[in-house]
Amino acid sequence: MPIYHAPTKDMQFIMHDVLKASEQDIPGYDELDRDFTAAVLEESGKLATEVLTPLNTVGDTEGCKLENGVVRTPTGFKEAFDQMRDGGWTALDCDPDYGGQGLPYLMHTAAQEPFVSANMAFNMYQGLTHGAYTAIHIHGSEQQKKTYLPKMTTCEWTGTMNLTEPHCGTDLGLMRTKAVPQDDGTYKVTGQKIFISAGDHDLAENIIHLVLAKIPGGPDGIKGVSLFIVPKFLVNEDGSLGERNGVSVGKIEEKMGIHGNSTCVMNYDDATGYLVGEAHKGMRAMFTMMNEARLGVGLQGYAQAEAAYQNAVAYANDRLQGRDVTGVKAPEKSADPIIVHPDIRRNLMDQKSFVEGARAFTYWGAYLIDRAHKNDDAAAEGLISLMTPVIKGFLTDKGFEMAVNAQQVYGGHGYIEEWGMSQFARDARIAMIYEGANGIQALDLVGRKLAQEGGKHVMAYFDMIKTFIKDNAGQDEAFDKEFLEPLKAASKDLQAAGMYFMQNGMKNPHNALSGSYDFMHMFGHVCLGYMWARMGVAARDALANGASDTQFYETKLATGRYYMTRQLPATSMHLARIQTGADTVMALDAANF
Amino acid sequence: MPIYHAPTKDMQFIMHDVLKASEQDIPGYDELDRDFTAAVLEESGKLATEVLTPLNTVGDTEGCKLENGVVRTPTGFKEAFDQMRDGGWTALDCDPDYGGQGLPYLMHTAAQEPFVSANMAFNMYQGLTHGAYTAIHIHGSEQQKKTYLPKMTTCEWTGTMNLTEPHCGTDLGLMRTKAVPQDDGTYKVTGQKIFISAGDHDLAENIIHLVLAKIPGGPDGIKGVSLFIVPKFLVNEDGSLGERNGVSVGKIEEKMGIHGNSTCVMNYDDATGYLVGEAHKGMRAMFTMMNEARLGVGLQGYAQAEAAYQNAVAYANDRLQGRDVTGVKAPEKSADPIIVHPDIRRNLMDQKSFVEGARAFTYWGAYLIDRAHKNDDAAAEGLISLMTPVIKGFLTDKGFEMAVNAQQVYGGHGYIEEWGMSQFARDARIAMIYEGANGIQALDLVGRKLAQEGGKHVMAYFDMIKTFIKDNAGQDEAFDKEFLEPLKAASKDLQAAGMYFMQNGMKNPHNALSGSYDFMHMFGHVCLGYMWARMGVAARDALANGASDTQFYETKLATGRYYMTRQLPATSMHLARIQTGADTVMALDAANF
Repeated sequence: MPIYHAPTKDMQFIMHDVLKASEQDIPGYDELDRDFTAAVLEESGKLATEVLTPLNTVGDTEGCKLENGVVRTPTGFKEAFDQMRDGGWTALDCDPDYGGQGLPYLMHTAAQEPFVSANMAFNMYQGLTHGAYTAIHIHGSEQQKKTYLPKMTTCEWTGTMNLTEPHCGTDLGLMRTKAVPQDDGTYKVTGQKIFISAGDHDLAENIIHLVLAKIPGGPDGIKGVSLFIVPKFLVNEDGSLGERNGVSVGKIEEKMGIHGNSTCVMNYDDATGYLVGEAHKGMRAMFTMMNEARLGVGLQGYAQAEAAYQNAVAYANDRLQGRDVTGVKAPEKSADPIIVHPDIRRNLMDQKSFVEGARAFTYWGAYLIDRAHKNDDAAAEGLISLMTPVIKGFLTDKGFEMAVNAQQVYGGHGYIEEWGMSQFARDARIAMIYEGANGIQALDLVGRKLAQEGGKHVMAYFDMIKTFIKDNAGQDEAFDKEFLEPLKAASKDLQAAGMYFMQNGMKNPHNALSGSYDFMHMFGHVCLGYMWARMGVAARDALANGASDTQFYETKLATGRYYMTRQLPATSMHLARIQTGADTVMALDAANF
Repeated sequence: MPIYHAPTKDMQFIMHDVLKASEQDIPGYDELDRDFTAAVLEESGKLATEVLTPLNTVGDTEGCKLENGVVRTPTGFKEAFDQMRDGGWTALDCDPDYGGQGLPYLMHTAAQEPFVSANMAFNMYQGLTHGAYTAIHIHGSEQQKKTYLPKMTTCEWTGTMNLTEPHCGTDLGLMRTKAVPQDDGTYKVTGQKIFISAGDHDLAENIIHLVLAKIPGGPDGIKGVSLFIVPKFLVNEDGSLGERNGVSVGKIEEKMGIHGNSTCVMNYDDATGYLVGEAHKGMRAMFTMMNEARLGVGLQGYAQAEAAYQNAVAYANDRLQGRDVTGVKAPEKSADPIIVHPDIRRNLMDQKSFVEGARAFTYWGAYLIDRAHKNDDAAAEGLISLMTPVIKGFLTDKGFEMAVNAQQVYGGHGYIEEWGMSQFARDARIAMIYEGANGIQALDLVGRKLAQEGGKHVMAYFDMIKTFIKDNAGQDEAFDKEFLEPLKAASKDLQAAGMYFMQNGMKNPHNALSGSYDFMHMFGHVCLGYMWARMGVAARDALANGASDTQFYETKLATGRYYMTRQLPATSMHLARIQTGADTVMALDAANF
């Protein structure tokens, strides 16, 4: 059975040594001192280790079952969900007006990480609810907020997001689900939605479906899409549950992974729906919650890699096979533990340096979201909006790759389900697909975000890197060479790619879009390089200031050096690919594939 | 349900335009004219499409079941196995003295490809038998060959390979299974073997287990390992089946994929075994069949990618979503097929250029094996021995990556088992692990093969590339620039990496082994670059000679250009990583991971 322990020391390092959370002038951040965040993270880590980790295999093996129209979740999920709810974990950053604790989004993000590492499928039930909560909180009427939010912060009622239909995923303009206005101001919603995570289950009294649908007679395509609340049980005026609404589960999908989460086909048949916000502005409502939702998926990517990594390290220390080529390390044993072998090290260092960089990147993203929302900081909003597709696309691609690498450390045992390493890879795989497949993230980045407001945000990004390098150079030659110079070189590659797009994308947009995926990965590397440089500065400063735990900070520096020498050189390969443009990519007629 | 059609035209292109098989001075190659190989490949393709493809999902869904000590294979496997046996497909390259058809290994390899693409788990039953056949054929006594081989060429009896034990996989010196000599010259074999593919099943009358075990009192470690034949049913002198031997199935493993193949824990309990070859020389017997076995696994890598690619292309042409950014392509439809989008192209071209390059690489490897064996050509033997870890390691890593890419084209549907794309990825995953995990392939390449005979083979490899470039340059400036120059640059990177190992590996072998995995991938890219250059020359020549199917050859050239511009630049990244040596890889104490 796989193990998991929350890496609270690493998490604290980012929140305090790197982001210096409690010193930030963001409302609520003054609460985030070391002791407070430590207490929160210890507790969420404890729940993750003790309750959620053992249920991860159970969820994978049992899956969800549709019985007489109702979904039954795996053994133990209900009790665990109650514990999570009772602990207040579902409402950490929610509005106190509706029962939330009003903590910063950064705190929420960090506290969620252990849950996602321990049991991604389980945590999606509350994760989806949080997304639906946010949509109603921003776009719902006062009445809607009063009716639904207090129950959703506690997850007594959970939420879902209904976008996809069989013939339309990315291109929501093709949507067929209809919402017909009724005399009483409600709508009758009819249609089929697929891939609905947590679409039905036995963990909550009610399920609040957020459904995208078209009001007949509205604009064609994406501009005619509206957002509706469609509760599983209608809610009476006094807040009690009324009759069953016209929504039912068509089937549960058999998936590659996240078996513990019920992915449903949902059928709406004259179901009563309530319009959220304005008619035909449904996509806007979706977009406002997208940064957070996509950051949450990016977190899933590295959180699965973290859990897989912890197990790979344990196995590499335990498994005896062969001898260190430079001399026996464990003469008292029949063979050395495989962690002595350079290629096992290479693999583990790839994982470690990715996961820690990705965590820093994600927490920094959460901090930017707080700054954007709580301080109305347009620059922060621009920056996080630019980086959201990178967080989602790069961290989930790499998170899956690293989970596969961790599985590889186990040799043949990695392929046997009993050892649990296959599940990490299978579960991590979905994060590359949902919430906008990663090719769409790349398109969003290059086709939309780069040019936003005349390229203002990407220019601000490069300025930020430049300023950071200038501010931190010249104090320590070795550090400059190991951290700042590689970052500078990688950042130059990224700028050159952006330049190529500007110069060649105008005459033919295919020249830019053919390089979009490479650009997303390149950007991801530069962001992780930047985070490692910041972590390096933090570790260097801590050591200079006489920190007692020198080993911890030395390890940070060593891990950062690994990323800089072994991962960052990828940017030049991506640049070379990008600079070949569309010619070879688009050369073939569709018939010649 | 996934589709599959054997790409016989592509296969023929490599056999004839590139390798010019029938012109080669290798015994048996004169038979390999275009008509003959076309007939063979059409037939194997037909069996693959009509019989094996529909059973692929069945095998995955039903899996194998252990009932009363006997393994039951999925519905339809028995009938399909009979068809494969009746068609003579199990003995194409086997010795005519034992009922084989004596065709070249190249023909066998090409004919196998469709079976592996269509149903990898199913084909392993005969694949393992072929391996066991080869070991007995080379190392067995006349009596053993007469007893077992005629039944194994027909797969009336199948074979297995028993190496791994719970505590030892890579390091077989730790083996505990014992073989105690008996007065009658036989041995009593006792121990437990794990991960035994096709360990038991209902497809054949008898199963001939090849088991590695230690004879008590022999040398310690790997030098004390011997090879034994342990039949499931003992064979009487007249060739009829006798009593059940002391071998039983402990359990069937639950795996990530290849569910249609029974992966068994095998328990040997005083089972009667017959020594193959000399005592304590078991590893030598294993090594002689390793090149073929590993080439077969490399083939699995790209064959799964081929099947996944065919489905991804079909889906990309079928799925309507969004519009071409440069203008609507299918105005009569609600949206354009997604194959119009550059990032979908990029993904499909990655797959296509890999699969076709990998096929050429593998067939060329099979040709070298024929030349080595049939012509006693030491140079060919040296070359294939050098490249075997590259074929196995690079083609399975990339094969899996490409199957995952193909799955990505499907968006959410790729994650749903019903669509079959998950199975390609899950099945392909094992090829990176078994027959020596890919980290071990990299170790074999850098730690052993590079320095073999004073580096003679790797020098011959570089000479071959150089000569090829010289021989083909100067006829067409564009071709030189598009194909030969990138190959030259990549080959220079590879040489620089080899040089780095020589200069730095002596003082610390970790400097070389820390870069072994990057080197294996780099070598793989250079090999595929070389194959694409050869395919480019072949296509160029065909066009110059007035070939009628210009589109086919133009497509080859366009696909080659893609590989050269978009994949080959990876070599410089790998070189940069390699040249940083062991410092950052080995920096941490094991306790600091």
